Amino acid sequence: MGGFETVANDAKNSVSATKKLPSSDSFINLDHGDPTMFEPYWKKQGDKCTVVISGSDLMSYFSDVGNVCWFLEPQLSDAIKRLHRTVGNAESDDRYVVVGTGSTQLYQAALYAITASAGRAEPVSVVCAAPYYSSYKDETDFLRSGLYKWEGDAYEFDKDEPYIEVVTSPNNPDGAIRDSVVNRGDGKHIHDLAYYWPHYTPVTRPADHDIMLFTISKCTGHAGSRIGWALVKDREVARMMTKFIEICAIGVSKESQLRAARILGVVTEGCQQFGTTPESGNFFEYGQSLMAERWKRLRETVKNSQIFSLPKYPQEWCNFTGKYIESNPAFAWLKYKEDADCESLLRAEKIQTRGGERFGSGRNYVRISMLSREEAFNQFLARLSAIQG
Amino acid sequence: MGGFETVANDAKNSVSATKKLPSSDSFINLDHGDPTMFEPYWKKQGDKCTVVISGSDLMSYFSDVGNVCWFLEPQLSDAIKRLHRTVGNAESDDRYVVVGTGSTQLYQAALYAITASAGRAEPVSVVCAAPYYSSYKDETDFLRSGLYKWEGDAYEFDKDEPYIEVVTSPNNPDGAIRDSVVNRGDGKHIHDLAYYWPHYTPVTRPADHDIMLFTISKCTGHAGSRIGWALVKDREVARMMTKFIEICAIGVSKESQLRAARILGVVTEGCQQFGTTPESGNFFEYGQSLMAERWKRLRETVKNSQIFSLPKYPQEWCNFTGKYIESNPAFAWLKYKEDADCESLLRAEKIQTRGGERFGSGRNYVRISMLSREEAFNQFLARLSAIQG
Repeated sequence: MGGFETVANDAKNSVSATKKLPSSDSFINLDHGDPTMFEPYWKKQGDKCTVVISGSDLMSYFSDVGNVCWFLEPQLSDAIKRLHRTVGNAESDDRYVVVGTGSTQLYQAALYAITASAGRAEPVSVVCAAPYYSSYKDETDFLRSGLYKWEGDAYEFDKDEPYIEVVTSPNNPDGAIRDSVVNRGDGKHIHDLAYYWPHYTPVTRPADHDIMLFTISKCTGHAGSRIGWALVKDREVARMMTKFIEICAIGVSKESQLRAARILGVVTEGCQQFGTTPESGNFFEYGQSLMAERWKRLRETVKNSQIFSLPKYPQEWCNFTGKYIESNPAFAWLKYKEDADCESLLRAEKIQTRGGERFGSGRNYVRISMLSREEAFNQFLARLSAIQG
Repeated sequence: MGGFETVANDAKNSVSATKKLPSSDSFINLDHGDPTMFEPYWKKQGDKCTVVISGSDLMSYFSDVGNVCWFLEPQLSDAIKRLHRTVGNAESDDRYVVVGTGSTQLYQAALYAITASAGRAEPVSVVCAAPYYSSYKDETDFLRSGLYKWEGDAYEFDKDEPYIEVVTSPNNPDGAIRDSVVNRGDGKHIHDLAYYWPHYTPVTRPADHDIMLFTISKCTGHAGSRIGWALVKDREVARMMTKFIEICAIGVSKESQLRAARILGVVTEGCQQFGTTPESGNFFEYGQSLMAERWKRLRETVKNSQIFSLPKYPQEWCNFTGKYIESNPAFAWLKYKEDADCESLLRAEKIQTRGGERFGSGRNYVRISMLSREEAFNQFLARLSAIQG
């Protein structure tokens, strides 16, 4: 299962998970998407991002007892809706906001909400077009639930029965913009939009789906806060997702919610400043510029190698930045030219990645995090360029 | 299922979930154990409990990459062990600490850790002696797991097969000090010690079990932080519990962990001051004094009613306070003298409690939170005393 444990085990010699500079014998861990590249931005923002919590604050289980999601801090709900209106990446008006301990928890909450009331004897099939995010399988199957089960690649799903399709757009691992692929009968959809933000991809329209998942980890880089949110059309689905999180954990950290509200508020304010540039404090402009520079350098290295290739992304008009831009995804989906084990190949160079088979794809692919700290990214490129065909 | 949603629905007229003063037409919600009675103590503690978190703090998924529980902040682990050594309520040396989003999540993590590696075709039975905490059933069964299933009262469990027994001591709902009751064959135990703290019960010895669960909610009253911890003897069990939380939610809020470390540190320092009294700042002495006063007033009201009764608790020597004390549990387990629906009886007086059947017991019992804000508790006693036989 998951890559985090591997990381912990390898970690004493790993770079991205610590702050030490890489040495030639360190593993560079790009297996997971730890978004530490955004730390320097947040260091520059000063006191406006600081939260102060006194000993008697936030003691109750309850945040907003009149709300369907009774453990959601109202200021976080407000900050989320303001940010979506400002960025234009998702319809948030007239939607229920459900907060979760990361979007990981919300994915499971959505599976529960869709299946628990249905009263079916057999578990509902859950599918996603390959290559799919490797953790969906673990999250769906680890408790051997009688409510739902992982069925793998949506393209191969041919059963005439109810199903749930996860639509990840931009896709993890390959950055593709996606739509559902099964499109028949009694299907429900969970749209995982963790990467639908302007630093990763052009924002072409406000997404408008029944269940849309987001996470602050990939939006601002605050992965340690474990804050995700769902925008949900249907009240009963929102109520059942809330019920799931109540039974799992009786709510979500109020300290993290308070801080997320502050951080998202600062991002929104930065976006609203006239004539934004990377220097003016607009987080997404900053992130877009940094991601574009990393991708440019990676593409040069890959081109020179002649043994690897990367997906190409079309230029599209981004309503947020007001220009044509390419996607610069949070992960690189690297293909090795031969049918060989690419993860092992890179591991031999002390680059830890996640192999293609984990994503329902071939072993000649690997997923590589583009969000590491600068020194780890530099070292990664140096080692990659040393690999000969 | 659970009582929280009921609370949210009833909440607009409920007292304990809001800060408004009770009026004669308000519901007093004592269904859940929201520990808001400790707020005044924390208000008095001033800046030493305050945490300040800047925008670039705590961004990574990782806290301690060399630790089995890689998302556990080392300062929280240290604070937990120092507190247990100071209070003497549990062996914490040479134990693995696993942090969770409340002990609720850790209960599920323990079920997973015990059952996932066993590879059994049939789900393992989970039992607890009645009356048992009403949420165990929901937490065990809500996903219809193939790994484990709720089998109810441990006293009635007669299958000759592996089982898991939950031992809650002091017990929720009735405050009893408990030991395991099945004691045969291939059984594993989860000890839920959420209430084994000196403000609720005499600390007679350091608990020493394979898996012991605690939560800051009931220890200090910081329920909104959603921080629980497990003390675990076996490395593989700790690793699998960590794996569960990784798959569920990729870790636990770092902001909450940081704040919990601070709060537990302040509690430990308060305990170590010489000649502690309620006024000197020792949290447990303060809490014990407050709980004893509430129980005294409740017992007087119940005695006068002649239609209700309460459990009796023996005086025992408390190693922590250095005196003989009685238990003053976080919940009152109130018995109505007739075989009638006690929850409905109290609901007619606008007192919201949780009925005995939810705990595997009779309808003539109710569980009542003793941890509400002062004004709600006072109003509760006034209404209870108005009920005539």
